[in-house]
Formats: sequence, structure tokens, C-alpha cells
Amino acid sequence: MFVIISYDVATATRTGARRLRRIARICENYGQRVQNSVFECKIPPNLFVSVKQQLLDTMDPEEDSLRFYFLGKDDEGKILHVGAKKSYDIDGTLII
Amino acid sequence: MFVIISYDVATATRTGARRLRRIARICENYGQRVQNSVFECKIPPNLFVSVKQQLLDTMDPEEDSLRFYFLGKDDEGKILHVGAKKSYDIDGTLII
Repeated sequence: MFVIISYDVATATRTGARRLRRIARICENYGQRVQNSVFECKIPPNLFVSVKQQLLDTMDPEEDSLRFYFLGKDDEGKILHVGAKKSYDIDGTLII
Repeated sequence: MFVIISYDVATATRTGARRLRRIARICENYGQRVQNSVFECKIPPNLFVSVKQQLLDTMDPEEDSLRFYFLGKDDEGKILHVGAKKSYDIDGTLII
């Protein structure tokens, strides 16, 4: 499945900054960062369930916001990027 | 059409901060802010062409990044939000 994950994390506190790092790291483990807080993930549905749970366990639902956009398999063509940080080829080598 | 617009704007300079405000304002004119730099827009295709051009004219393609995700009409159900800043009802009254 192809999922866009975007998040807003309240970083006014130290714990918020820590949540942000952890949330980013989880997303980086399973997807491609395309903007500061936007990731594109191409993962099997069962793996997504665990990714989602890791994110839910990490975030503070009172402070942080997570959005998941489920695009169809052939929806990748429906993405337009303009400007800096060119779109990574999600099937290409993951830059670690 | 239903478009997700997300952006990263380099705000290290005053002109960058001004670009950020303008880009946010353009998106607010045509869509619903769902996260800091993520907007959901339900607009006719011809209107989207002008919105896109306004954004392209405002951004600095060397510094800023704009992404457009084109979801299908009936893809709204494919969005999951968790946490703070509940999802606005895009057909509801726009809070100005």
C-alpha cells in the first residue's frame, strides 16, 4: 500500500522535541522523507498496522497531529513536486 | 478535484518568512488547513490551475518545496487523522 504520513508535533517542551525525533525515525525506517514532516511509504498492509501503532504509541494525541493519506497502488502518478528537495525515487536506493 | 497541498518554505531569511505567509494565505483562500503546512483543497480543476500558478509565482523553487497529491473524488474516506487539531469538515463552514 502507498501511504502519505504527515505530522505536526508540539515541540515547545523537551518531551515534545523527543517525540518529534522518534516519530521522524519511525517514518524514516519505513518510508521516504519528501518534506520536513511528510513521508511517503510503500509498505505491505500488515507492516503498516505495526508502523501506525508505533506512531500512536509515540505521539501525544492531545498535542500532536498525525495524518495518513492512503493512495492507491497506481496513484503515485498523482503526485506533483515543485521546487527544492527533488522527489526521491521510492523504489530507488534508500539514502541512509 | 481533491488535492492535498504540502509545503516546506525556507524561512531563514525575511523574504522566506514573507513567502511562507503568502503561500499559507493562498492555500487558506482555497482550502482547509489540516496541519501546519498541509492543506486539503476541494476545488474545480480550472481553479486549481490558477491556485497552482499563484503558488509557483510565490515560491522560490531553489529553496522551497511544494507537493500536490491528487486524490480521487471518493478518496476522502482514505484519510485517517489521529490527535490534536481534529480534521475540519471540508464541506462545513470555513472558519475565517
